[in-house]
Amino acid sequence: MNTKSEARMQKSECRSEPASGHHESYFWPEPPADGQLVITGSEARHIARVMRHKVGNMIGVVDGAGTEYEVELVEARAVRVAGRVLSTKSGAREPKHRVTIAQAVLKGDKLARVCEQATELGVTRIIPVQTARTVGRLSAAKLERLRAVSLAALKSSTRTVLPRIDVATELGELLATSSEFDQVLVAYEEETGPGMGEVLDRKAASVLLVVGPEGGFEPAEIDALQAAGAVSFSLGPRRLRAETAAVAVAAMALGLLGDLG
Amino acid sequence: MNTKSEARMQKSECRSEPASGHHESYFWPEPPADGQLVITGSEARHIARVMRHKVGNMIGVVDGAGTEYEVELVEARAVRVAGRVLSTKSGAREPKHRVTIAQAVLKGDKLARVCEQATELGVTRIIPVQTARTVGRLSAAKLERLRAVSLAALKSSTRTVLPRIDVATELGELLATSSEFDQVLVAYEEETGPGMGEVLDRKAASVLLVVGPEGGFEPAEIDALQAAGAVSFSLGPRRLRAETAAVAVAAMALGLLGDLG
Repeated sequence: MNTKSEARMQKSECRSEPASGHHESYFWPEPPADGQLVITGSEARHIARVMRHKVGNMIGVVDGAGTEYEVELVEARAVRVAGRVLSTKSGAREPKHRVTIAQAVLKGDKLARVCEQATELGVTRIIPVQTARTVGRLSAAKLERLRAVSLAALKSSTRTVLPRIDVATELGELLATSSEFDQVLVAYEEETGPGMGEVLDRKAASVLLVVGPEGGFEPAEIDALQAAGAVSFSLGPRRLRAETAAVAVAAMALGLLGDLG
Repeated sequence: MNTKSEARMQKSECRSEPASGHHESYFWPEPPADGQLVITGSEARHIARVMRHKVGNMIGVVDGAGTEYEVELVEARAVRVAGRVLSTKSGAREPKHRVTIAQAVLKGDKLARVCEQATELGVTRIIPVQTARTVGRLSAAKLERLRAVSLAALKSSTRTVLPRIDVATELGELLATSSEFDQVLVAYEEETGPGMGEVLDRKAASVLLVVGPEGGFEPAEIDALQAAGAVSFSLGPRRLRAETAAVAVAAMALGLLGDLG
């Protein structure tokens, strides 16, 4: 641990993952009123009971929309935590580019892993997509879980923007909204042409990356994507599982755009 | 499924993941003798019993060292599978660059996930590393499991080279062998300077990527790495879990070197 974070840890009595030298933020989507932030529910319980924060402690709170507050606690009970906002910062530690992943719904817990890792990497939005070869569907409970996993990843990664995770969307609906993005790229396993590095527009402010299900896209789906302006690219001659492809394309895109280093 | 793979599936009666349109290879490290490949043990059982291959079927076999054989079965029993080698190919679907990941030993099953995804992506070698903040150790049983996971990923990804997975290595030992690599890069969470794109030598034939444990590297470890010629790079201001960092750096490096597309 370096001395800067040591000092911060002592100041806040933060007990999460001390070896990492980082500070966990808390999440509260509502804005402060009269310079004071009031937190209730499970997050208050977490702050006061689990993390044992006391009156006078300093904590960091993010609203999930890009704003973070430095807060000095004036009340620290399991049912209610309140604090004075000492400083407000916007957009810290967030990528400059908006990268959205449209990921075909996957079996089991794979989509949760994609949401977790994509959140850490800096993805802005995740759109679960129903495609022709999608196995299973995204229940309301599962969507709830994806959002919870993403929130946990926001905290552990010290992000300030919580990625939006859409309800499951038909591929046709996705295509209808594709003009919202400066560029749409699709990872296609039958593509033998260019890799992402050759097609990604470095000047795009927003990119939609489309990744298929375990069984891949049907040719007609690729045709429809391309007709809507999507550019297909190759991830090489090896076969990647969908969740590996999703994390790889997120890392490659954010890396190439200069948002991962 | 496209017609090409449909034809192939019918020919080989392959029943693995039919929707994916790809063909699973079998693994047998021993070379053919007199143009014939003889497979025993669990792989013979898998071919004959689980996949129900019969005499006359064509199967693909890879040796894990870059060679793959197209084999026509002349014997298909659970204890012994034999076939005539019809064709031999070398290095297909393998990256042109040798990317090695030195990953600090991680808790639970995380290192297995790194091995799985790194194998899919095309990593050549994985070196589990003991660092100052490594929690736990890599038992012989766990190493065995890493190798099994990597072998399964070789098959599912249709690779022909099985990544070497070393026994756990002290960071000092790793440094002593760092001159084997054209370039050594270390992902350092306190680095605020260049990202991988700015430091990766595109002309390097072999690159070692070093990724720390959950708690990060100690400054003295980074000093030692740099003294041995390693260049540290940043993965951006967000905090990535070690296993996400490992997959991200593998994808970024292989992508920048042109081996992932």
